[in-house]
Amino acid sequence: KENTSERNEIFDPLPSWEDGKAKSDIINFVTEAIDPNNINFIPVKERIATFDNDGTLWTEQPLYFQLFFTIDRIKELAKDNPEWKNEEPYKTILENDHEKLTKLSKKELLQLVMTTHANVTTKEFNKIIRDWLENSLHPKFQKPYNQLVYQPMLELLDYLRDNEFQTFIVSGGGIDFIRVWGEDTYDIPKHQIIGSSIKSEFFYDKGKAYIQKIPEIDFIDDHEGKPLAIHKHIGRKPVIAVGNSDGDLEMLQWAASNSNPHLAIYLHHTDKEREYAYDRNSPIGRLDKGLDEALKRNWTVIDMQKDWNTIYPFELDKK
Amino acid sequence: KENTSERNEIFDPLPSWEDGKAKSDIINFVTEAIDPNNINFIPVKERIATFDNDGTLWTEQPLYFQLFFTIDRIKELAKDNPEWKNEEPYKTILENDHEKLTKLSKKELLQLVMTTHANVTTKEFNKIIRDWLENSLHPKFQKPYNQLVYQPMLELLDYLRDNEFQTFIVSGGGIDFIRVWGEDTYDIPKHQIIGSSIKSEFFYDKGKAYIQKIPEIDFIDDHEGKPLAIHKHIGRKPVIAVGNSDGDLEMLQWAASNSNPHLAIYLHHTDKEREYAYDRNSPIGRLDKGLDEALKRNWTVIDMQKDWNTIYPFELDKK
Ligand SMILES: [Ca+2]
Ligand SMILES: [Ca+2]
Repeated sequence: KENTSERNEIFDPLPSWEDGKAKSDIINFVTEAIDPNNINFIPVKERIATFDNDGTLWTEQPLYFQLFFTIDRIKELAKDNPEWKNEEPYKTILENDHEKLTKLSKKELLQLVMTTHANVTTKEFNKIIRDWLENSLHPKFQKPYNQLVYQPMLELLDYLRDNEFQTFIVSGGGIDFIRVWGEDTYDIPKHQIIGSSIKSEFFYDKGKAYIQKIPEIDFIDDHEGKPLAIHKHIGRKPVIAVGNSDGDLEMLQWAASNSNPHLAIYLHHTDKEREYAYDRNSPIGRLDKGLDEALKRNWTVIDMQKDWNTIYPFELDKK
Repeated sequence: KENTSERNEIFDPLPSWEDGKAKSDIINFVTEAIDPNNINFIPVKERIATFDNDGTLWTEQPLYFQLFFTIDRIKELAKDNPEWKNEEPYKTILENDHEKLTKLSKKELLQLVMTTHANVTTKEFNKIIRDWLENSLHPKFQKPYNQLVYQPMLELLDYLRDNEFQTFIVSGGGIDFIRVWGEDTYDIPKHQIIGSSIKSEFFYDKGKAYIQKIPEIDFIDDHEGKPLAIHKHIGRKPVIAVGNSDGDLEMLQWAASNSNPHLAIYLHHTDKEREYAYDRNSPIGRLDKGLDEALKRNWTVIDMQKDWNTIYPFELDKK
């Protein structure tokens, strides 16, 4: 009897998931999808799974991590822009006013993103992000940001790929920002990482070619932008879509309208102690309308506190 | 001795290619790229190959095939738009004036594309293209358009993929148009097919979701658009880029600026008898500036007449 239980443990593709509806929804779905004799079989080409990033694959509190980068970068660039001390929205940043920061308007946030993400070549930008990741720690966990990815989601990504699903990231965050570290962290190739973008220009001179990022919005990959980006970058409806906020609702609706069997999944942040607890009233990652629709349509809702026995990969080292 | 020659034939990955610089450039490049002990080794993740479509993977004369579709579609839609008989650019189309057609302005062509590609859902559009392909023949070859792909290029795509290259299409043609038939024809998944696009909108009502194409230009994937689209959809520089016209020059420059070993390839249409012969003065697929740069920089130039012993897959049936 001990042997059987050991073997079961060895073959559990989702060891960081507790038994419950979320885990069984996923395992039943995949088991049926890959069985050619099952009525819910899904052809390999149609096995597309799309994941939001912030708050779905990694933590997004107390601020989006890309916003931490933006803040650090503004402080860096302020050395050459002394006038920012008296100029909003830079002033708020330089004074470390986190409360005021969460209240910045969309326009002000965009201005900050432009300032920090444009006027560099794509190659320079990669290096800036890499350096920042190496030298920055999350305020609560005191860990590099790219270690604050969810172990259960890494297991889910692997499980899906082991069963010939193609995994994609479809994020409101910056496409160039995520690609720098996302490929290695999630084992998802850059061309399967989709996100928001600013415009860019191509330059060529005597054998040297480069792309320069310019301070103009190109595409916001949020809400209806997600199914539109999925159509443009992937070209077919996902059969699995995973998100955590109202900004993912349209993506989940898109998956849930698939004529193939499908799974729409919301991650509900319910663990104040091990991570953060927030939903209907959070300025970051608000989950309100989406939660209503999930409950109404019996979508899969992951209760982080109950459904996950491990949150971060580094917890495994201690076990 | 016969046995050896037979074995060599069996293992030639490019049997439709004649011996010469083009074939040896390709085989040497790939052989070195996959050999970890070779100085020109390329890590698997960096093995990105981008192919133009019209005139590179399939024929583009006497008109771009998507333009043949556009013409046929205009004729179809004219039944409900009788006023088009006296209205340009529709008049030119309805009168079958091919000469005048090649002289339509870019704006007029775009208007035709909008009319025929928008105001349908993506699902409806797929069906329209599928039906058209099934019921249309090329005027010269009397074959369905998707049979007019180049056998040597199909072999090259396979050869690259067998050696862990990822193959992408980066076309000036419509992304939604190519994806309908390109996935099966080239064995390239939809998400690795990139092209020009018109805008689209997401609609959702009581569990039903759809994307509607609207008559507004979103992106033109030509000239500098190609490296920009490669950056956005793929996120890394190709090590192989293949094209046939000046519109591909920036893509080839982008590949040729790769710090990894790289191969920039132009297909030169030199076979008047078996296909078409055109270059510096052709209104379709003009190759002028690109040919100069290719010769100057010793890029690989495929001479269709000399380098290919077979053009189309259907020729193999006769052999
Ligand atoms: Ca999110
Ligand atoms: Ca072309």
